[in-house]
Amino acid sequence: MDISKCLLEHKLDTSSNIPLYLQLAEIISDKITGQVFPAGTKLPPERVLARMFSVSRTTAINAYRHLEQKGTVNTRVGSGTYVAGQHCDTGTSATRVPWAQLFTPYPQTPLSSILRELVSPPAADIISLSAGIGDSALYPVGTFTNLLNEHIQHVGRADFGHIPTEGYDPLRQSVAAMLAAKGIPTKKDNVMILAGSQQGLYLLSKILLEPGDCVIIEASSFIGAIQVFQASGARVLSLPPDDRFPLAALEDYLVRYRPKMLYLIPTFHNPTGRTMSLEERRNLLQLAARHRLIIVEDDPYSDLYYDWEPPPSLKALDTYGGVVYLSTFSKILFSGLRIGYISASPILINRLALEKQYIDLHSNNISQWMVHLFLEAGNLGSHLTLLRQEYKKRRDHTAKALRRFCGKYLDFSVPDGGFYFWCKIKQSGTSRRLLHEATKTGVSFVPGEAFYTTATPDKEFRLCFTTHNQTVLQEGIRRLSKAIAQTANNKGNEDSLLFTPVSPII
Amino acid sequence: MDISKCLLEHKLDTSSNIPLYLQLAEIISDKITGQVFPAGTKLPPERVLARMFSVSRTTAINAYRHLEQKGTVNTRVGSGTYVAGQHCDTGTSATRVPWAQLFTPYPQTPLSSILRELVSPPAADIISLSAGIGDSALYPVGTFTNLLNEHIQHVGRADFGHIPTEGYDPLRQSVAAMLAAKGIPTKKDNVMILAGSQQGLYLLSKILLEPGDCVIIEASSFIGAIQVFQASGARVLSLPPDDRFPLAALEDYLVRYRPKMLYLIPTFHNPTGRTMSLEERRNLLQLAARHRLIIVEDDPYSDLYYDWEPPPSLKALDTYGGVVYLSTFSKILFSGLRIGYISASPILINRLALEKQYIDLHSNNISQWMVHLFLEAGNLGSHLTLLRQEYKKRRDHTAKALRRFCGKYLDFSVPDGGFYFWCKIKQSGTSRRLLHEATKTGVSFVPGEAFYTTATPDKEFRLCFTTHNQTVLQEGIRRLSKAIAQTANNKGNEDSLLFTPVSPII
Repeated sequence: MDISKCLLEHKLDTSSNIPLYLQLAEIISDKITGQVFPAGTKLPPERVLARMFSVSRTTAINAYRHLEQKGTVNTRVGSGTYVAGQHCDTGTSATRVPWAQLFTPYPQTPLSSILRELVSPPAADIISLSAGIGDSALYPVGTFTNLLNEHIQHVGRADFGHIPTEGYDPLRQSVAAMLAAKGIPTKKDNVMILAGSQQGLYLLSKILLEPGDCVIIEASSFIGAIQVFQASGARVLSLPPDDRFPLAALEDYLVRYRPKMLYLIPTFHNPTGRTMSLEERRNLLQLAARHRLIIVEDDPYSDLYYDWEPPPSLKALDTYGGVVYLSTFSKILFSGLRIGYISASPILINRLALEKQYIDLHSNNISQWMVHLFLEAGNLGSHLTLLRQEYKKRRDHTAKALRRFCGKYLDFSVPDGGFYFWCKIKQSGTSRRLLHEATKTGVSFVPGEAFYTTATPDKEFRLCFTTHNQTVLQEGIRRLSKAIAQTANNKGNEDSLLFTPVSPII
Repeated sequence: MDISKCLLEHKLDTSSNIPLYLQLAEIISDKITGQVFPAGTKLPPERVLARMFSVSRTTAINAYRHLEQKGTVNTRVGSGTYVAGQHCDTGTSATRVPWAQLFTPYPQTPLSSILRELVSPPAADIISLSAGIGDSALYPVGTFTNLLNEHIQHVGRADFGHIPTEGYDPLRQSVAAMLAAKGIPTKKDNVMILAGSQQGLYLLSKILLEPGDCVIIEASSFIGAIQVFQASGARVLSLPPDDRFPLAALEDYLVRYRPKMLYLIPTFHNPTGRTMSLEERRNLLQLAARHRLIIVEDDPYSDLYYDWEPPPSLKALDTYGGVVYLSTFSKILFSGLRIGYISASPILINRLALEKQYIDLHSNNISQWMVHLFLEAGNLGSHLTLLRQEYKKRRDHTAKALRRFCGKYLDFSVPDGGFYFWCKIKQSGTSRRLLHEATKTGVSFVPGEAFYTTATPDKEFRLCFTTHNQTVLQEGIRRLSKAIAQTANNKGNEDSLLFTPVSPII
């Protein structure tokens, strides 16, 4: 059966009041109930479906999500979307246990599958400027292999078994030393090793947030943090967007909402690339100390500066003990290590460990030795120098290419470090509309609304400039400019799907 | 200041109605409020404190726990117990944020630190028969190193970055093939890779259990599972102890409590070593199918049989799709890999992945490649043969030594596989009392009450026979027999601390 052909008999009605995704879901649903697509049929990938009906990928995703919620289809990540029914069991005949009805409630939000999509490999013909990952060609794989060969015979046999929940002792020591050298007074007991800093966000939510609690984030923020906070049942309150840190607004929030914590990425912010000045940091900490405000400082990018060193971390400037510092080796080594870390009061570390024991007992030993060996052998400094040199070139190249190919259409400022350009569309058209065209010209980015908990005019998007070399980057931006031209020619054909904010808006 | 001397001025009153741990806490508390022990003072390790006052380690632990709950002391795992105060910050001056008051409620149970204690290294002079770990001398470290060297250059660079939340594709394939060979029809989409099977228990709790839900476990069961279920707020109901599987009691529970799931370790049970017969399995599945009962089958030990192969897993016999299968490489390779896996319907896998993305995005890549390479190269079969030969000898040796040295005092049956002897004290005296003496003679085990959610007469305990070679094992059992002799001489001096059951007792 040619599924595409069956589907292409149908057209969407762009003049209708019914959203496009519902129209699309209806078409597919009819084929399923009419047995044209029997149980187990693999449906077209979202990308293909989007192209077939000339709609955005979001529209296609939402059509499938709608069907999934109705139990008509099942999505298996990494595999595709299938017509629900007997195929969905463990190789035997039929699903006789009504699984979907047994699950605890899960808030299906527009964001809920974005993280998983970002960690999944992109389609082969797309240059992905979406995921925040470094260039795999720069991963220090050779050094790691050599260190492992040199040392594996000297690792104590017991170190292959269970280790303390808080982490491999030598790594906790070397991370403490690394942080101390950055002006953050840290001892081993202040450090816990995490399965990526994502796990730190999860654990902090578990021990600090209860339904109804308030968390403050910046106007736009890291998707993974927003998701975890929302999943905890907390109210996620965004500060107003501002070129300076909105201190007055924060003070107002502190009084009105008595938030449990403030989550910040003060240095080379994700997604905006912005860095808080030293003065802003000092003023924030003064206010925070008065209110005994817990600040969770997420700092994955500060080693990746391309012009000058950023100001000291909030944690280094903390005088009242309220800053919890979170970072990771994912952006500077490679993310497959799954090694992040937290620096905080031992009271907090102890409480976090009580939660972590339930989740995984402890993080995996091999990555922990390897990172420890890498740090101890003094390899990090030269590796960072290499990354800074290379990524600086790419940043400059990206800025030049964006100005040259897309200058008329886009506003952006050049980040001092980190991974991202945050672009604003000057003229009419939304970033989702642009992404729709961009996937056709073969490039992808993350539409800005993914970083917000509040409704936005959807004029912004994030480009990651560290994943690809200059040639590929330039080609990616050229494709982006083609998509821009397409969008300009197709004015008025805006996607009818409205972004629905999922968290309380204040 | 000699802390021990200060403390040894005091004696406990064994004739008093005040529990020993409260008396002990009072003594320490007085020293702290009287500034004899200033903030930051490191207090004696629990073991030492117990010896100083001739009380059980549990009494010492409870004394410190009591003080910790009052905020008088802080315990830092891997480091020790300290007088609370200014030392407990991140290297700066004082704790000005009242952390302990900001945390979400955490059910402090007698079990809550046991898991962490079990993964922490034992004191140097103690032969630990406590933790359920294999012999580190048998870890296939050489094979792993060779495989890594041979293959690391061929691992795709992108495989060092992010991979799908469900796991590294080739490993999902090879685990599926391994399970299929065991009679469990499994495809890649049925498999999710976990950070140890502990993570599977955690994720299953997250997606299946809400406060007030019921979970059924066997009379005694795995500590990590009990803890996770309790932490979810579920009611944990234990089946009555029985030599056969208590099917009638289960049916009664199913009708009366409509439980969300049944958690079982059907093969070489932890802690009892017992294996369900094929007939018992078939009868259970018949009943379960009628009730659409979800069974979580935890199966870490079935490859480690020493006489004959155990019956097929419940999952292999499942006809109604209700069995979720959980296992791990921790017991057969090494636990530091942190690689477990689950086999279930893709609907369930998909829902689990939505939770796992929040916790760690995905498990670490390096362990996943390594296990995949090990499986693909066909190394598992011969490695298991080696383990079975070696552990069989140790099991037989343990049985012989137990009979010879402790036969009068202990009842036990010889397990057909797995890691554990489950011993019962025939005469007067509790296992906690025995452990108290045993730590003095230099051996440790897990007292039986740790595996129960209901009050027990505390006559049972678990010995792990796989960690040490025969010489050390024999010495451990000799020390155990010495402790038994001591207990027999010290009758009547029972610990006054009563075990308080923490979950609802039915």
